[in-house]
This record gives sequence, structure tokens and C-alpha cells, in this order.
Amino acid sequence: MVGIIMGSKSDLPVMAEAAKALKELGVAFEMTVVSAHRTPHRLMEYAEKARERGIKVVVAGAGGAAHLPGMVASITTLPVIGVPIKSSNSIDGWDSILSILQMPAGVPVATVALNGARNAGILAAQIIGTHDEQIANKLEAFKADLRDKVLTTLEEVENFKLS
Amino acid sequence: MVGIIMGSKSDLPVMAEAAKALKELGVAFEMTVVSAHRTPHRLMEYAEKARERGIKVVVAGAGGAAHLPGMVASITTLPVIGVPIKSSNSIDGWDSILSILQMPAGVPVATVALNGARNAGILAAQIIGTHDEQIANKLEAFKADLRDKVLTTLEEVENFKLS
Amino acid sequence: MVGIIMGSKSDLPVMAEAAKALKELGVAFEMTVVSAHRTPHRLMEYAEKARERGIKVVVAGAGGAAHLPGMVASITTLPVIGVPIKSSNSIDGWDSILSILQMPAGVPVATVALNGARNAGILAAQIIGTHDEQIANKLEAFKADLRDKVLTTLEEVENFKLS
Amino acid sequence: MVGIIMGSKSDLPVMAEAAKALKELGVAFEMTVVSAHRTPHRLMEYAEKARERGIKVVVAGAGGAAHLPGMVASITTLPVIGVPIKSSNSIDGWDSILSILQMPAGVPVATVALNGARNAGILAAQIIGTHDEQIANKLEAFKADLRDKVLTTLEEVENFKLS
Amino acid sequence: MVGIIMGSKSDLPVMAEAAKALKELGVAFEMTVVSAHRTPHRLMEYAEKARERGIKVVVAGAGGAAHLPGMVASITTLPVIGVPIKSSNSIDGWDSILSILQMPAGVPVATVALNGARNAGILAAQIIGTHDEQIANKLEAFKADLRDKVLTTLEEVENFKLS
Amino acid sequence: MVGIIMGSKSDLPVMAEAAKALKELGVAFEMTVVSAHRTPHRLMEYAEKARERGIKVVVAGAGGAAHLPGMVASITTLPVIGVPIKSSNSIDGWDSILSILQMPAGVPVATVALNGARNAGILAAQIIGTHDEQIANKLEAFKADLRDKVLTTLEEVENFKLS
Amino acid sequence: MVGIIMGSKSDLPVMAEAAKALKELGVAFEMTVVSAHRTPHRLMEYAEKARERGIKVVVAGAGGAAHLPGMVASITTLPVIGVPIKSSNSIDGWDSILSILQMPAGVPVATVALNGARNAGILAAQIIGTHDEQIANKLEAFKADLRDKVLTTLEEVENFKLS
Amino acid sequence: MVGIIMGSKSDLPVMAEAAKALKELGVAFEMTVVSAHRTPHRLMEYAEKARERGIKVVVAGAGGAAHLPGMVASITTLPVIGVPIKSSNSIDGWDSILSILQMPAGVPVATVALNGARNAGILAAQIIGTHDEQIANKLEAFKADLRDKVLTTLEEVENFKLS
Repeated sequence: MVGIIMGSKSDLPVMAEAAKALKELGVAFEMTVVSAHRTPHRLMEYAEKARERGIKVVVAGAGGAAHLPGMVASITTLPVIGVPIKSSNSIDGWDSILSILQMPAGVPVATVALNGARNAGILAAQIIGTHDEQIANKLEAFKADLRDKVLTTLEEVENFKLS
Repeated sequence: MVGIIMGSKSDLPVMAEAAKALKELGVAFEMTVVSAHRTPHRLMEYAEKARERGIKVVVAGAGGAAHLPGMVASITTLPVIGVPIKSSNSIDGWDSILSILQMPAGVPVATVALNGARNAGILAAQIIGTHDEQIANKLEAFKADLRDKVLTTLEEVENFKLS
Repeated sequence: MVGIIMGSKSDLPVMAEAAKALKELGVAFEMTVVSAHRTPHRLMEYAEKARERGIKVVVAGAGGAAHLPGMVASITTLPVIGVPIKSSNSIDGWDSILSILQMPAGVPVATVALNGARNAGILAAQIIGTHDEQIANKLEAFKADLRDKVLTTLEEVENFKLS
Repeated sequence: MVGIIMGSKSDLPVMAEAAKALKELGVAFEMTVVSAHRTPHRLMEYAEKARERGIKVVVAGAGGAAHLPGMVASITTLPVIGVPIKSSNSIDGWDSILSILQMPAGVPVATVALNGARNAGILAAQIIGTHDEQIANKLEAFKADLRDKVLTTLEEVENFKLS
Repeated sequence: MVGIIMGSKSDLPVMAEAAKALKELGVAFEMTVVSAHRTPHRLMEYAEKARERGIKVVVAGAGGAAHLPGMVASITTLPVIGVPIKSSNSIDGWDSILSILQMPAGVPVATVALNGARNAGILAAQIIGTHDEQIANKLEAFKADLRDKVLTTLEEVENFKLS
Repeated sequence: MVGIIMGSKSDLPVMAEAAKALKELGVAFEMTVVSAHRTPHRLMEYAEKARERGIKVVVAGAGGAAHLPGMVASITTLPVIGVPIKSSNSIDGWDSILSILQMPAGVPVATVALNGARNAGILAAQIIGTHDEQIANKLEAFKADLRDKVLTTLEEVENFKLS
Repeated sequence: MVGIIMGSKSDLPVMAEAAKALKELGVAFEMTVVSAHRTPHRLMEYAEKARERGIKVVVAGAGGAAHLPGMVASITTLPVIGVPIKSSNSIDGWDSILSILQMPAGVPVATVALNGARNAGILAAQIIGTHDEQIANKLEAFKADLRDKVLTTLEEVENFKLS
Repeated sequence: MVGIIMGSKSDLPVMAEAAKALKELGVAFEMTVVSAHRTPHRLMEYAEKARERGIKVVVAGAGGAAHLPGMVASITTLPVIGVPIKSSNSIDGWDSILSILQMPAGVPVATVALNGARNAGILAAQIIGTHDEQIANKLEAFKADLRDKVLTTLEEVENFKLS
């Protein structure tokens, strides 16, 4: 199971994309709010119990001085995927990106693009897929589908009439 | 008493400047290492007990994805002063600055300049000085001394011979 | 008492958040306009008299080349909290942040996040709370409230139906 | 097995840290050079055959306009960890970071810190450890060791004599 | 003939400007979608056959971690003009610019301004014009027209009435 | 006369270039230290008396949160030229540049390049030269000399032997 | 007389502010379009004849890769004030600022804030005012007016009712 | 023939790489100094006569506020390749890059990486190669050589012994 957490309910529109990707790929997940700065003890407890509760990968999204992914990674040895969120308080997203990406040696966070929650979901599925052939096969089909969708757009672009 | 903490022993050359400033200003302090990412439980315990142990202000320095000041501030209601450190892994210090500065509403960190540990010490003394007249007086003398030191340099600059 | 100042009346929508936070926490404050660039003598007088007028902490907000917090700090030995404001002329707020944060050794400004006036108010209360138990207790209740508000959002996120 | 690749032999001093971390954690790996821009067909072949050759995770490091991790991820459905390298031609590393991090929806790359190859190795082990209890246990021991090393530095910092 | 390619149909509003410029200048072109990350084999095939199909210059536009121009340039020896696109996922365009511009020695991409597809079209015509006098003459007329259009605006500005 | 001021004696190596340029161009100047943050009253007095003392242009250099040029401009109506200095505490000079450049409407500072004190001196001479024909003539000769120095380097570059 | 020039008619809404400021201060001016990239010969002619035509100061505004101010300054010895404009093609204004500010030694441009045309007008008046007492007096009155306008806003802010 | 120009003799160590690449590829070139800011009339003349003198492509390198490539492109209709140079006065190269890259619609400059003069030379050869089969063939061999050089490094990396 993949555990999706976010620093605030306001992050839900972005983070729901991780859940949608996992649903498409047939990977079980749960989703909740864990705030590093407003519920630090809840963060500790979540991270300490994640592995024993059957979570394989944590997807954590946060904005601004985004400490949630890194603090979860400080406690669990599960892979933690960080999603920098361009929140209303963010400086064009640079604060979220750097707060999540630049972790010190010993404590990695797998960072995806700004607001890249969909990719966080796919990456979580890829991690599950390293040992689950069914998920791996779904990922192959998913990738073929990405390609096929591009191919359906060729005609429109190739025949575009310049105004 | 002021509690000075840093994420790693390698931050000591920078953070010792906070201690020196406090010593000059006659403010008691203690100094130790608390790593948000390598000793998260120690961080929790430090922050939870700081007020009852008699600490009035926490000065916390960290580099890169610098979560130490913000996580201490998530637990204690003491003022927390954050010192962004330009560590060897830092991207010109931008990561440290933004990770410390851009805290969400509700959980402030008083951020000083990059590597500005001396100012963190002075700011801690100013906080103590809001209710301690002796420290306030020392701060006035300290400020006068800053001014006087500038005045001693006038002659050299005013009489500088262009090569 | 906390003195809240801002460089222009146009900063009021941001800076009023500092006042609101102080009101919630039961800390007395006053609020006025002091422009470093348009009323420099007023700035000098404000800063020189702040302590004797009973002000314990100054909260100063400004945008662009934001000199107000630093210039107040050059005169008073009270703690000065700087609020970088993303004004219409600002370059995404970088100018305000760097103009306030990067003070030279000897003259600290406690900088909060871009537009982070609410945190400036809370930080001012924390400074008062270092020596005022009643305020300290209110800060503890305030922090518990922050946590409790997060907990009320769990159900909605945990039961979110993917569209 | 983890496949470590890099865009150039000159990246070896950085990327060898990924190999060292994997060796410490008892995870098998291989290491070679694959250049996106100079050996594009080799890149295609590497990525196409990686899963069938038994590779579980790819760790790919590159500098400047760093296309290697993203292009491998465009072909394989294995998790790809990207290491931005601050090469001599890089603009303070920003080019490497953004070229690796900002992948479009559908094709994730798990990005670590600038020059963060050690963390890439640990993250790869964490991915293996989601289904390999022995590796998971080693990761727990590794994390405990990180903590213990911090604790050995306390005394020196706490007793530091100000000069 | 100039080959115009883009990473996604959503780039068409920007990239059509390259086509319009080429049409104005009487240079033949074709336009299609080639996604580096979603259709990597199509990219390889496109680049490998471009020269033999009679293409003289490739204009490639992409946003975010923009690998399309650089990967085409890794395969063909034709000149490749890269257009950084400020897509919805982009960080103010910096990611697109740096991903396209900072190519390693040996594999150039001729980068134009952010969203500068019109200039990419003109540059492609200039390249054709190095050996085609008719196109060179059209470029001279085009440049004279640029100048003349400025001159028609002088009167309005010179006689502008201040409100 | 041109008044050259700087925030610290440590800025002298940079700021002396302004003096040298003025000397070359035959413009009288004086040079001293005025620190916005350490000697704010001296700053006020300097700016208030500059015009009556016969100063025509102020050249002010400072680093980090550089408030000196803007604060002088807040008091005097003389033209103030600001020189951003890349001091040891500066973040690659961005802080100095933005603190000096981004002045609010009503209070201009004429900003030159980072460490561009030589240009500040020349600009001050150009200002004097708007009403002093002798200086204007010297500036013409100076400009011709710039050109001639370039021309002396042509041969070496044109005949450069590739190694 | 002050010569106001801009790279394109589309810069007029910004650049008209320079004209308005000069009109308020009683300084004569003319305004026209000179494009460095579309009318380079016009630029040369404008700059070569500016002084003999009686122009004392040039105010030049441009966006993007803004070469107009610097190229005028390469020809004339008059003071040139550069106004970086945040045009639609600009990257948050950084391109305009750096293209104007970072002039090489020998050829200064007096740069004002992004879109700071009003300050460019005031600065031009200050330059005229170094030798024209009437303009100097108007600048003093203008500065007093800036201050007085701030003072009229005090009451509203001081009596602001928190909602 | 390719015309290589640079703003200053000090750019020669960087720009000679363009010449070396052209020599390797058998493309004729000439090299000289043309300074936009110190020799503007020389720039005009160079650009006006380039085509008639038989130049097919201009390679122009400059640092700081780099106006040379764009100003040449404002006059000639030949393709102009711009090389941003990280000169001693540059702000990490950002000024050079943005001054060259962000040209307005109508006047393209083909920008290469920071200090990427070697790629500028190769790009110039690619442009010649669009109509010169011999050069095109040399470029194919050059590309094969790039690949082969990578392949010679595989063994060393694959057999690297971790210390």
C-alpha cells in the first residue's frame, strides 16, 4: 500500500493526482493530512508506524518551507517521495523544491517536479512494480498508452492551417 | 539562557559566532548538536523540554534542506532564531535560506542572514533585553561601540592615496 | 506593547495580519506608517523613542528595496521583526526578502516569510512571552488550536472520492 | 541489482558515492557510462534491456542539460533515480537540477540533491528494501548508525572553548 | 525544408509562430509532434531520417525538462534550433531554457528566447539563406519592414499627450 | 565636487576605482566612510549637508542589505549613484543589487553594475559634464581612448595561433 | 532638455511616467521611439547628435535583451538612464535588468528599478538640478510633498479596525 | 567563411575554442575583436559588410551586459551565433545568457551554453554543412568520434574499485 500524506487540506487538489494515478495502475493507497509544523507528534507517529502498517512507499506533498517529506524520511527507512507544491505563500515554488530536494547525505527524499503529484503516484507504482509483475505489466501498458495518445494528435498538428 | 543548536558538528565554526556574541553581551547560553534528519527524536525531546529547562530563546543553525529551526518551532512556543548555513552541499545558500524563512502561518522562525550567527546571538540578547535592563544597557554600549569602530576608520579612507 | 510599522498605507492589508495575531494572543500593539524613503526623519524619531515609549518589539513591513526594518534596527536595540512584502513593484518578492534578511553583522533583523505578517505578530508575542507567563500560556493554547484544526480536516481528505 | 550510469567518466568521483552506499548496504550493483548526447543508441539499448537483465532500479547522474535520467525513464518502467551533477560547465547546478526534476506528467524521475549520489544509492536500497527484509534491516541499522555518529560529536560541541 | 517539431500538441499555439515566419519568408516546412519522453523511438527515427528526407534545419520546441531539442541534436548533424516553452508546468520558463541551452561540448542546440518560436523560424530561414540568394533577399526585405514598422509609430509617441 | 562614500573600510578596494576614474577625468572628489547601519546619524548629517557643502553628486557603495545609497537619496535631492558591492557576506551580489536598484517611486538611485565603481565615477563625471564643457571634452577623449585601446588588440587576436 | 526614448511603442504606458515626472518638475523633454534591434542606424544617429541638439540627459527604456540604453551610452558621453521594462516576453524582468545594469567598465548606464520610469524622470531632473537652482528648489518641494502625502495616511492606519 | 568576433581580447581563451572546432571540421574562419560598447562604429561596419565579404555565419561572444551578438543581428541577415561568456564581472553568467538569449521577435540570435564556444563552432559548421556535403560528412565522422571516445572509457568505470 502507498501512503499519501499532505501538509494541509488545501494541498488536496494537487495531491489527489497521486491517488488517481495509483488507482489507474491498480495500486492500493490511503490518503490523509499530516502537518510537520502543526502536528509534529502525528508526523512522528505516522512515520514510525508506516512500515509495520504495511505501507511500502510514502508520497508526501508540502509547500513553502516544506519539511514534511524530509522529516518522514528522517524516521522511516521506507522510500519517501516528495512533491513540492506551489502554494499561495510560495516564492514561485523555489522554496518548496529546495526544502524537499536538498536533503543531507544519509536521508534521501525522491523529489518529483513542482506540483508533480501524478508522477509521484506513478513512481510509487514503479517501486511496487520492481517486485510485483502485475503492476509492472500495467506500467508497460500505461507507457504504451502515453505513446498512443501522442500519436492521435499528429494529424491535427500536421494539417494545422496557419491563420 | 539561550540554547544554541546546530545540525552538525561541521556547523560549529559558523555557529560559535552566536556564542561569542552572547558571551560579549553577558548572556548565558549552552550549545549542542541536534540533527533534524539524523536525530529526530532528540530534536523532539530538546524542543519539548526547552522552556521548562529555563531556555528563553533557541538559536538553530542548519544548511541545505534546513529543517531544524522550523521543526523546533513546531513544538516549542519559545522564539526560535534560524541561521541559514552555506554548507558544502548548499546551492549558494538559497536552499538553507528558503527552508528556514518560508514557514507557514502559525509557526514563525526569526531568520537572520546567511551564515549570520553573530546576528542571531545579538538578536537573542535583544529578546532577553526586552525584560532585562542590564542586558539592554549592554546592547546600547555594544551599539555605540559599533559606531565608534567605524569612526576610527575615517582617516585612513579619507587620506587614501590612489595608486 | 508591540509597535507595528509599514512603509506605506498600501501595505496595510498584509500588515493588519500582524495586528490580528497580536489581538488574538492578547498582546497590546499600536500601528502606524513610517516610510524610510519618504519620511526618514520620522523613522529616526520613531526608532529613537521606541524603547522609552514602552515598545518591546518592533514589527516593520516593507516591499521592494525594503530599508525600513534595517534602518530601525540601526538605531534601536529593541528586537526588530522584518516582514518582506510582495508589493506591485517587487520582483517576485526577492528584492524585499534580500533587502531585509541580509543585514550586516552587528545589526540583526528577525525576518519572517514573504507577506508573513501573521507570523511576525506571533513571533512578537513569543518574545513578550519569554517573560510573561500569561502570554506564554496563550501561545500554548494557540499552538494546540493549530493542531486541532488540522485534525478536523482528516476525515474529508481520508474519504475523498476521486473524480 | 541496481544499475548506476553516468553521462561521462568525469562524473565518476560523484557517482562512485552511490556505489559505496550500495556496497555498505549489501545491495548488488553495476556501473557504466551511458551518454545521452554522445551515445544515444547505447542509451536506448541500455534502457530497453534493463528490466530483462535483472536491474530493479536505475541510478543516473548527469550535469548541465542533463537528459540521461529522463530519457532512460522515457523507455523503461523501472524506477529511475536522477543525480544532478554540478559539472564544470554547470550554472551553479541549476541547469542539472531543473533538467532532471521537471519531468512531464507520465514519466517520473526520482531526483535527489545536487551531487547527492550517496542518497541515490540509499534510496535505491530503500526501494529494494520494500520487498527484501534483509536489506530493510540493514537500512534500520544504517539509520541507527547515522544517529549514533551524531551523538559522538555532542561532547566536543558542548565543551567548545570560545577563542 | 525546415522540420518543426514540438513535444506536445499543447505547444502548437507557440510553435505555429515558427511556421508563420517561414511562410512569410517563403521557406518550405513541415510540422509534427515528437515527444522525447512519450515517443522516444519516434524521436530516434525522426532524427535519424531527417537529413535524407531533405530537411535542412530542425526547429524543436519543448517545455519543462525539455529534452527534445538536445536529443534530436544527439543523433542528427543538422542544425537544431531549440525553443524553450513556458508551459503550465514550467518554473517561469527557467527549466525549459536551461534544459535546452546548456548542452555539453560536441552537441550544440541553437537556443532562442523563451516562447521565441517566431525567431526560430527566422533563424531557420537565415540558415537556408546562407546558400539561397532568394531567401537572403527576402530576409533583407523583412528586416527593412521591421524598421519601417517602427517608423510608423514615431508620430504617436512623439505627440503623446500626458494625462 | 563628487562625494564618494562607502559602508565600510573593507569596501575601499572596490570604491577607490570611482576615485581613480574621477581623477583621470579631472573631477574633484572627497571620499569617506558612512555606514547606514552602524552610523545612521552620521548618514543623516552627511546627506543633509551634502548640497550646501558643494557636493554635486554622491557615489555610495555598499554590500549585502545595502541601505546606504537609498537612505542618502531619501534625504538629499542630489543625484545618488549606487554601487552594489559583492562583499564576503553577499549572496553572489543579488542582495546588494536588489537592495540598491529597487527603490520606490519618488526616490531614485542611479545603480551601476556589481562592483562597478569605475563606472560610478565616470557617470558622476558625465553628470558634471552636462554643464561643464571642459569635463565634457575630457569624456570625449576618454571615450576615444577606450576605442583606441581595443584597436591595439586586434592584431594579436587576428593572428592568434591555435594550439 | 531630457530625451526620452523607448524600444517600442508598447513601452509607452511605462515610459510616459518619466515624462509626467519631468513635467511636474518643470523640466523640458522630448519623447520618441528608437529601437536598438529594429532601427540600429536611427539609434546611432540619435546618440551621435543628442548633445549638439541640446539634450542633457537620455532616459532609455527597453525590455527583454534590452540593448538600447547601453548602445546609446556607447556613443554619447551624456548621462544615460536605463529603465528595465517587464515586457510580455520578459522572464520576470530579470533579462531587462541584467541587460541594462551589467555594463562593462568605461560605459556606465544609470539603472533604475524595474518599470521605474517615474524615478528615471526624477533622476534626470536631479541631474539638471545639479546646475539649475530653480529645478533644485522644485525637487526640494517635491520631496517635501512626498513626505506630506505619507503623513496624511497616518490616521487611517492608526485607527484601522481589525475585522 | 565563419566570422568569429569577441567583445574583448580577454575573451580569447574562451572564443578560441570556436576556432579550434572549425579548424577540426575544415571550415574557414577569421577572428577579430569587435566591442559593442567601445567600438560601436566598428560593430556597425563589421555587420554591414559581413555578407558581402563572404562570411556565411557570425559567431559572437561577449560577457556581462552582452550586446555584441544582438547588435550584429540587428544589422545583418546572416545567422548570428551568440556565446555568453562568464567574465570576471559577470553574475555567475546569468547576465550574459539573458542579454544574448532574450532577443525580441524579428531579430534572432542562436544562443549556445555559457562559455560554449566549441559548440558555437560546431553549430557554424552544421550551418555550412546544410549545403556543403563535404562538411556534412566531416560532421558525421566527428559525431562518430564523440561516441567512440565515450566507449573507450567504459572499462575504467565498469571496473572501478571502490576505495
